[in-house]
Amino acid sequence: MLKLKRVGVDTRQENVAFLSRHCTIYRAAEFAGLEKVEVAANGHRIIADLVMVDDPALLGADALGLSTTAFNHFGMPEDTAVRLKYATPARSRDALHAKIQGSELGSDQFAAIIDDIAHHRYSRVEVAAFIVACGGFMTTAETLHLTRAMVAAGDRLSWGNGVAAGGLVVDKHCIGGIPGNRTSMIVVPIVAAHGLPIPKTSSRAITSPAGTADTMEVLANVEVGLEQMREIVREVKGCLVWGGHVRLSPADDVLISVERPLNIDTREQMVASILSKKLAAGSTHLVIDVPIGPSAKVRTQNDALRLRKLFEYVGDAIGLNLRVTMTDGSQPVGNGIGPVLEARDVMAVLENRPEAPVDLRERALALAGRILEFDPALRGGAGMARARELLASGAALTTMHKITALQGKPPREARLGHLSREIVAEHDGTVVAIDCYRIARIARLAGAPFDAGAGIDLLKKAGSFAQAGEPLYRIYSDTETDFRFACGMAAENSGFTLGVTPKAGEAA
Amino acid sequence: MLKLKRVGVDTRQENVAFLSRHCTIYRAAEFAGLEKVEVAANGHRIIADLVMVDDPALLGADALGLSTTAFNHFGMPEDTAVRLKYATPARSRDALHAKIQGSELGSDQFAAIIDDIAHHRYSRVEVAAFIVACGGFMTTAETLHLTRAMVAAGDRLSWGNGVAAGGLVVDKHCIGGIPGNRTSMIVVPIVAAHGLPIPKTSSRAITSPAGTADTMEVLANVEVGLEQMREIVREVKGCLVWGGHVRLSPADDVLISVERPLNIDTREQMVASILSKKLAAGSTHLVIDVPIGPSAKVRTQNDALRLRKLFEYVGDAIGLNLRVTMTDGSQPVGNGIGPVLEARDVMAVLENRPEAPVDLRERALALAGRILEFDPALRGGAGMARARELLASGAALTTMHKITALQGKPPREARLGHLSREIVAEHDGTVVAIDCYRIARIARLAGAPFDAGAGIDLLKKAGSFAQAGEPLYRIYSDTETDFRFACGMAAENSGFTLGVTPKAGEAA
Repeated sequence: MLKLKRVGVDTRQENVAFLSRHCTIYRAAEFAGLEKVEVAANGHRIIADLVMVDDPALLGADALGLSTTAFNHFGMPEDTAVRLKYATPARSRDALHAKIQGSELGSDQFAAIIDDIAHHRYSRVEVAAFIVACGGFMTTAETLHLTRAMVAAGDRLSWGNGVAAGGLVVDKHCIGGIPGNRTSMIVVPIVAAHGLPIPKTSSRAITSPAGTADTMEVLANVEVGLEQMREIVREVKGCLVWGGHVRLSPADDVLISVERPLNIDTREQMVASILSKKLAAGSTHLVIDVPIGPSAKVRTQNDALRLRKLFEYVGDAIGLNLRVTMTDGSQPVGNGIGPVLEARDVMAVLENRPEAPVDLRERALALAGRILEFDPALRGGAGMARARELLASGAALTTMHKITALQGKPPREARLGHLSREIVAEHDGTVVAIDCYRIARIARLAGAPFDAGAGIDLLKKAGSFAQAGEPLYRIYSDTETDFRFACGMAAENSGFTLGVTPKAGEAA
Repeated sequence: MLKLKRVGVDTRQENVAFLSRHCTIYRAAEFAGLEKVEVAANGHRIIADLVMVDDPALLGADALGLSTTAFNHFGMPEDTAVRLKYATPARSRDALHAKIQGSELGSDQFAAIIDDIAHHRYSRVEVAAFIVACGGFMTTAETLHLTRAMVAAGDRLSWGNGVAAGGLVVDKHCIGGIPGNRTSMIVVPIVAAHGLPIPKTSSRAITSPAGTADTMEVLANVEVGLEQMREIVREVKGCLVWGGHVRLSPADDVLISVERPLNIDTREQMVASILSKKLAAGSTHLVIDVPIGPSAKVRTQNDALRLRKLFEYVGDAIGLNLRVTMTDGSQPVGNGIGPVLEARDVMAVLENRPEAPVDLRERALALAGRILEFDPALRGGAGMARARELLASGAALTTMHKITALQGKPPREARLGHLSREIVAEHDGTVVAIDCYRIARIARLAGAPFDAGAGIDLLKKAGSFAQAGEPLYRIYSDTETDFRFACGMAAENSGFTLGVTPKAGEAA
């Protein structure tokens, strides 16, 4: 028997086991061709990828190491005597192969695959194979099976009578990709001020310069447990917290951990991922924001329409009342990009200040209006006006103050980066396009979201005229290295396209 | 700057870098969302997957660890000061995405992808995505591009006048999947005895109970370097060595390391893999053995025909003169399965002993005959007769003795396992089928190929009649655990299907 050791490496979603090549109990060569082994002791068992260790200082010949993730999943103390054997292929292996070969799968097959993925019985390579195979060919019925399977594999929240007003729990979701699009932080206080429960969980940025959770953390604590979240929503109807504490769709967490580095974002996976999480979160009514633009996730009206139909098909089948709103995704929303700058824009809107970005305000009002229309007590078509009223009266601001007070103080004080540089127009011209992807990259290089005060403040938006030498945006950073990288990237290509203005005397 | 450390874990084909979560120079969180980083020092650079280390005992806060593979690729000593940065996506990233989305790629795109794969710039997840995307849709033209790209990414052998007879270098390849199919060890001495150069490199078993290299190692040393191989072939025209020393298709090695655990075996990948390696090995003429059977890789005549056409199309385009031979793949070949037992069968054929398995002999003669037909000096249709003559006369045996003598003594003496058990027929009946996959699994569990003497000796083949209680095969093993596992699996399902013989008096 081998002795269990914890090997303190973070292999993320994947279970990894380590075995010495000098192991005297199991012949390393015997396992070398296999990727998956089963580690077992006292009824506990875990499937893990096997990695061979050459260095005796890292792992003894009689030890079996488990990575942090695997060790926690296994749940046994160090020095437990463990057995190692060939892992039998995951139960859903045949279904995976059928999908790879282009078959349409049934609900049982999706259930088996998602159950195996949620329980870490797939290697990352198998997960990638599943994602790419689904991306190649997937019917709407399969998307529904996948969504249901993902809900079944996780926990499911129920809000009960203390929270839900007449059974209504509303939510909003943006499919993402547009920097500065922090409407949730305006929509939630408006909707909560109206009295509809909106327990919003958000993510932190993974590859973008800020997630809603990062920006909200400038104003308040966002690491709120489920019970506290329930109390806050009972009291003020809304919250804006980080969703990482809640295990709503463990299979989706695994899928995303592979999709992100692959940079794959298929329509079907997106629909299944979003709707399964919303259903699991106990939402009954949902508005989905789909920005359309040349550097957005959805590039044409036609693509947006197909996506909308798929959301509606699956939403109807799982009993989620949803509306898809298509919005302008041609450029960043608001002026600030990065947590501190975005929080500034959000508060300017809530405080009805004259410098508040109009595009951010109008988007938020339109989305809030759509959500308010779910309220049976409201006259049809009155949602937007009601939203505007709640914002203008200061009711939304008051609710936001209550939410931040209940969630608690932010973990650290965030202020704007102390290094800044303006990027200027090279020639006269009207701003015809701003590349969302490029601007996000520059803001990220500047240090966002890890430095909350790093980012970009846009001084011109599409349609504005800029004279040669006039600033287009300002980069903020907190460290010299990040600042240099970000400025270098902006110098190479600012992300702005300026129209060439014909010189006086030339024909237009 | 970080200090380079070698971390003695074997991450196979993949470069892995380790960074402490307590690193003071780079913020771990900043890199946590990224899978790929670039490590650089003094003009050396390497792309690696990044893994975070929690345990200070494993890696210091100012150290950057590289796995054994990555450390060797990087080629700098420990304690070198290294820089870490975001890896720019692999050059071929757009081409990969186009393939995932179902596009047909051109030769430049395949060249870029294969170059990145050969240089370890893809993660395993990206490699899996490429394989599955190709499996979903791939044209014959794309298969050709892939083959050419794989040849271009590796070394290429040239045999020169000392070896090649009139420019001819012949070879054979079996697509695999049939236990006991050790024809190479009979074909090579026959063809070499005739005088055609046949420098055969073979693989070790990865998931099967024996590869040709494993079985040959019972008789001789197979770990022969390129120069010694050249000398042997110059002297006796043939050799039977392990191909692992020769870096013929590094991209294919990476692809296979992902395909194997995924258990994916697409026609296009197979053709590109085999033909690129044969061309790189300097072969000019090639016979390919495609066994057809219900538990073989190719299951129908139609599938075999499509595979043959693809081999021919690509072979013609890259200037490889090839013939595809379809053979019976309905059951294991010969009697022995596992290195020692297979070597016994091979020598029985070469020594013209009466107990030599007829099926193994006739297959080998047919394949050797096909190869001999490549000799312009031989009259058309005379190949098989010539092969039979070289075997019957003992010329092939003499050549085999010369080959084993030149390659050197085997690294250890191998003998049949000391534990054995017979698996018997449960009722009277004719053997109607033997499941190749099941038999291979049992032989593998018994310890083959790691214990050369472990395996299965078939006592009945398809078509034989067995009385209840009569032995079907014998399992050999060297260790108690393996023996128990193998016998347990055989007891559960022997892999044999016996026809039910109607009892006397019953209607047939």
